[in-house]
Formats: sequence, structure tokens, C-alpha cells
Amino acid sequence: MNIAVAQSGGPTCAINASLVGVFSEAIKSPEIDAVFGSINGIEGIIKDDLVNLRQIIKTNEDMELLRQTPSTVLGSCRYKLPEIDEDSSVYERILNCLEKHRIGAFFYIGGNDSMDTVAKLSDFIEQKGSDIKVIGVPKTIDNDLPETDHTPGFGSAAKYVAATVQEIIRDSSVYSIESVTIIEIMGRHAGWLTASTCVLRANDEIAPHLIYLPESPFTEEKFLEDVREMMAKHKALIIAVSEGVRLKRDMDKPRVIDNFGHEYLSGIGKTLEQIIKESIGCKVRSVELNVMQRCSSHICSKTDIDEAVSIGAAGVRAALSGETGKMMSFRRISHVPYVIDIVSVDAHLTANKEKFFPSKWINSAQNDISPDAIKYFLPLIQGEVKIAMKNGMPVHYKIRS
Amino acid sequence: MNIAVAQSGGPTCAINASLVGVFSEAIKSPEIDAVFGSINGIEGIIKDDLVNLRQIIKTNEDMELLRQTPSTVLGSCRYKLPEIDEDSSVYERILNCLEKHRIGAFFYIGGNDSMDTVAKLSDFIEQKGSDIKVIGVPKTIDNDLPETDHTPGFGSAAKYVAATVQEIIRDSSVYSIESVTIIEIMGRHAGWLTASTCVLRANDEIAPHLIYLPESPFTEEKFLEDVREMMAKHKALIIAVSEGVRLKRDMDKPRVIDNFGHEYLSGIGKTLEQIIKESIGCKVRSVELNVMQRCSSHICSKTDIDEAVSIGAAGVRAALSGETGKMMSFRRISHVPYVIDIVSVDAHLTANKEKFFPSKWINSAQNDISPDAIKYFLPLIQGEVKIAMKNGMPVHYKIRS
Repeated sequence: MNIAVAQSGGPTCAINASLVGVFSEAIKSPEIDAVFGSINGIEGIIKDDLVNLRQIIKTNEDMELLRQTPSTVLGSCRYKLPEIDEDSSVYERILNCLEKHRIGAFFYIGGNDSMDTVAKLSDFIEQKGSDIKVIGVPKTIDNDLPETDHTPGFGSAAKYVAATVQEIIRDSSVYSIESVTIIEIMGRHAGWLTASTCVLRANDEIAPHLIYLPESPFTEEKFLEDVREMMAKHKALIIAVSEGVRLKRDMDKPRVIDNFGHEYLSGIGKTLEQIIKESIGCKVRSVELNVMQRCSSHICSKTDIDEAVSIGAAGVRAALSGETGKMMSFRRISHVPYVIDIVSVDAHLTANKEKFFPSKWINSAQNDISPDAIKYFLPLIQGEVKIAMKNGMPVHYKIRS
Repeated sequence: MNIAVAQSGGPTCAINASLVGVFSEAIKSPEIDAVFGSINGIEGIIKDDLVNLRQIIKTNEDMELLRQTPSTVLGSCRYKLPEIDEDSSVYERILNCLEKHRIGAFFYIGGNDSMDTVAKLSDFIEQKGSDIKVIGVPKTIDNDLPETDHTPGFGSAAKYVAATVQEIIRDSSVYSIESVTIIEIMGRHAGWLTASTCVLRANDEIAPHLIYLPESPFTEEKFLEDVREMMAKHKALIIAVSEGVRLKRDMDKPRVIDNFGHEYLSGIGKTLEQIIKESIGCKVRSVELNVMQRCSSHICSKTDIDEAVSIGAAGVRAALSGETGKMMSFRRISHVPYVIDIVSVDAHLTANKEKFFPSKWINSAQNDISPDAIKYFLPLIQGEVKIAMKNGMPVHYKIRS
């Protein structure tokens, strides 16, 4: 049989590594002939836009370069399948494409929305009496997928954020005057990435002095109280804030909603900067880490990249052993030494659901992270990948011009 | 005799490396006893706030860690000396402090403004008949100091910007829809850092498709014309724009001016985003690389860091051979192989002056950089420093808590 793999949702440092995991396990498996890549996620299957990966990834060097190249080499999409009973025509097109190319297993590397596709598509295929397998391979820098200890892509984003926040701490402490620096970190609803800045304490940084997550209530009054209290102790105050933190007064503003129902947020950093400027009047600036958090492969986590490969490969083995409608998942056995295993879970349990940062790891003042969380985060950012360099810059693998 | 060293202006990846250069050359020199560090630039001399660096930098490991730690370990300032004939009292205090600590040479690591201090202070000291030497060691990520081929700190900033822009290129190309990504890069008046993104072409990137510098005239009409023309050729358009690029309509806005007469600018990226949104209506976003450009030691240029050490050391040798009122300077002998030597130039020639990006390297449409510039930039970003890591994060050297 043949197989197909696609990448979906926002880019990460590890999504190509999971593709390499699927590909490398497939070419080792005598049951599998062609390995197709679907261009722009499930849209490639719908439009019959497939590439033969064996013709593109030809050498071990190709594979290594792809493994360390950020973003989605096959392109991505944000396509949401309709409910099956509302409109089955798109499902029929998908099934036609899979059957036409004798595809016996389809692997979808993505986040919550992609697991919705895995759940629905596997349901439809089962209803049709086909035995094509559909397996989800998790990825998201947000770390907000339920039923898995963590997600590939998160560790690299957290490592970049930690290194960058540390550099901003150095940058902000040079002058003799009091200052506040607000660092806005990705996370619309779940504060995992913002919370992960607490790992800096393992390296004797006190900052960030204040950490705010979307999981906690947030008011302007309490925020200013926190800032004033911390400014009395620290000359150069550093605040980490998740992009999803909302002020009550913003709640009434019209929101932009994408077709998964996500809100597009921006600007809590700038808003807080303005509040401090008006109410306290000290030197203040806000810094948005922005899209750099997603694709900063030049400082990716080796643990993350290695795990991303492993979980892709495990997906192939799961499909070959007959599983379908599953998401591959990490289960943590222990923090120190760090031990995980890979299991599979029902994709319906993860589809469209978000895993929030646990309240047990948020302090009672709702402005900091408990030391217990450091043990959870630290293993995920360990190790560096030897990045291929040319002309002083990282080399990226490209299969499409 | 003793010597003193201070750091001034905005942080860079290389300013501590130059401090290490001064320190390591000094401790090798039998003429020199104590090496004082002045806290917060020249302010430390004015306030008699000095530290004995031999008591702080104790081991080779300390020195190596300091060399790779970003920002200014001694703190910085933006203090401008008055004209000598306007107010000589502060000069008297400086001279008193230098004489009190038997300081025979003072090294000031900084940019254009710091060279103003070097020029004025050496004039004053000469007028007083003292033979204390004052030597400037250049640094700025802006690369806008005259009388030197380039400045320490620039190469590391350019390497970070190139790596990051390349990652943003990958990030922006995942979806099937047309998009524009605007990347705002530091440089208030000189576009060196923005121009340096052209190095990506040495690694077969076509992007950035449009590059705008403050050195060229800029109008909304021509900008939209450029964008429309490029969108016809490239699905995911990447625009690099210097923070100093100004639209005519912004010219009337009130400006914030610091005490060196610099304007604080922000937001050309956001402004251009809005213009495209209104006039073209495609998906568009702007990304500010912000302060991360200054202190991203985790991907610094080995060439830059090594040169920063060398030019600090050369400053000590210049002072010992009797020079004063000089700025140390790089002179490029050849691009390939890359050969430079270090000379000294009159600090009066560099004080308060800016070196702009040469018009010969800007294309006639004023929206791109000529391939000739790549030869200039490439040597400056070569090589990687082996960064000390602990718990998955770079280790920074700290001498003040």
C-alpha cells in the first residue's frame, strides 16, 4: 500500500521533523510503497495535489536538513471539515483521492483543529466500510492539546523564548534609571509558553518578575498594584504576559474570528505599556516576540526535534498495527531522569479541545508560576541540534521553490 | 599606572567582548596595575563609582563567559558632556576621579555619542596639561560610525537578523493565500542593518523582495506600486524596512527627542501594514525585531566577537604607545580572503557623525540592495561562538546582582 502525510495549522520548528519521522519509518516498512506528501494540508488531498516524497527526499543529508528546517515544507492550511451529516461531498472527494492513489494510511500532523479532521475523517471512512487508517501526529507551540504530556514544537518555542527573554533581561538592565519591560508571548487561551519563562530561575535569574496568563483573572488595578510593589524591589522590571490576557475594558471591542472560531488578538503588551506610562510614568517599553517564537530553529530543542521524529514514526507503526482515529501522545514516566513513552489516544478526545495551564502551578496572587512547573518544563528544552551553516547562516531545506 | 574602562550607549552582543579585550591586554601589560570598571559609563567616573575588575574577572572561564554575554556588564549611560567652555565643572570632577585613582588611560566603548565624550575629554585633559590618555573603542549595531570599515556589534546583529528573517520567510510561506510580511529592523538614520538582509541571497533566498532604507526617499504611492508589482511575482511577499523610514504624512507629527537630539521612532512597520490593508486588502502583518537585535548572543558572529576583543586590546596598546583622543578603527584590506587591520583615527572625526549606507549599493528603484554589498556584509557574520549552556539555556556572566 501507499501512505500520505500532510501538515496543518501554524508553523513550528518540529513539524518537518515529524514529517521526517513518518517518512523514515515508512521507507523502512516493507508493507509501504509510495509515501505521498499532501500540499497545504488536507486541501492537497481534496484537490489531488500530492507529491511523491521519495522523489524529493533522496539522501540522508536531505532528511537531516529537513529535520532542522522550520515551518511546513509541504505548506499548511486552516481548513475545517463540515459535519459529515451536513455535507459529505468533501469527504467523498477525500476518499476518492485516497483510493485512487491506493493510500492505506493518512497521517495528519497538526493541533486541535487537525485532530478534528482526524476524528471526523476516520468516522466517515469507517462508515463507508473502508479500512484506510487515519492517524494524528500532534504539534503546536501552544502545548494546549489534551491527552498528551506535551506537544512537539513547544519545547523549541520555549527554548527560544527563554533564551530571548534572558537577553532582554540583560538589555533592559543597562541604564541607571527605573524601567519596565513588557514581553508579549504567544498563547491565545493557554499560557504554557508564557509560563515556561519560569525556567530562567533554574539559571539564577529572578526575572520575569511578573508572569500573567490568560487562565487567570486580570484587572488593571491589580496589575498596577503588582507593578508598583515589584518596582520597589527591582530597578529593571520584566513582565511576561500572554497575548491572550484580556483587560475587562477590551471585552466589548469587536473581535475578529477565524473559521475555527479563534479570535485574533493583538496588543496586550502595548496596552499595558500605555497603562504604565499613564499611571506610573516611568520608562516603559513592550516587546512582542511575535512569529519568531514559531520558527526559531536556529535555537531549537534537540529533545523536541528528536521526539517529533519519534512520534511521527510511532504513528506509522500504529497505523500498520491496525489503529485508526487516534492521536499519538506522549506519556511522562518521570521528570528526573526524564522518561517518556509514546501511546495512542482517541482523536475525538482531543479534537477542538484545549488543555489549559494547571491552576496548581499558578501562585495565589495570580502573577507568578510555582517552582514545581520548572520540573515539568526543563526536560523539554534540553540539548542543541548541530545546525548546518552556510555563509554564516542556517541552511534551510526547500522542496518547493 | 592604573586604567579605567567604561561602556556607553545601547547594548550589543560585542561590548563585553571589547571590555574583555581591554582587560586581557591590560593584565598582560607590566605597565598597568589596577583595571577599573566605571559603572554606567562616564557617570561612574563622575560619581566615583568604580569597581576593580581584577577582583571580579578572576578566571579564564569568567573571561570567556563575559566575552559571550550580551549587553553591558558595567551598565551604560546616555550622558552627553557639555561644551568645555560652557561648563567645565563636570570635566574637573572627571579629572579628579582619574587622578585620585592614578588612572593613566581611560577607554570608552561606545558609538557616535561616546566618541563625542572621547574627543571633548581628551581636549580638556590636554588643555590641563595632564598626560592621561583617552581612547574610544567603537561599538554599535547600527554600523554608522565614520572612519571605520564597520563596528563591533554590527556583525552579530546582522547574523541574528539574517537568521531570523530567513525563519520568517519560512513561516510566511505556509498557506496557499497571498500575503505580505513587513519586517521592521533597527536603524534610525542609517540603513546598514536592514540592508544586510541581502546576505540571504548568498544562500539562494530571493526574499526580502523589497528593502527600504532611511537613506532613500519614500512615498506611499511608490511603495504601493512596488508591492503590487512584487505581489504579481511572489505569493508570500517579504519586505524589510528600516525603523527610520519616514512617510511624508508622519513628518508633521510631534517627535520625542532624547538629550543627544535623537528622535525616538516607532511603528513604520505598523503604518505600512495599515496602508496595505486599506489599499490592497490582502493578508498582511508586520513584525518588529525590536531589542532582540541588540543582544542576541545565542547566535552571535564569531568574527564579530573576536574582532571586538582585538580592537579593545589594540586600544590599550595605542594608549601605552602615547596616543590619545583617538578612536580605534577597522580598515578592510580585502573581502576574499577577508583581511582587516586595526588603526587609530582622530575621535573628532567620528564624534556625533553618522556614516550612511552608500548610495552606490542602493538600486535605482530605491527598493533593493546591489549584489556588491553582499561581499561587504558576508565576512562580518561568519562563524559561531560555542555558547556555554546550562539547563538548556545560554549562561550569562553577571558581576552585579
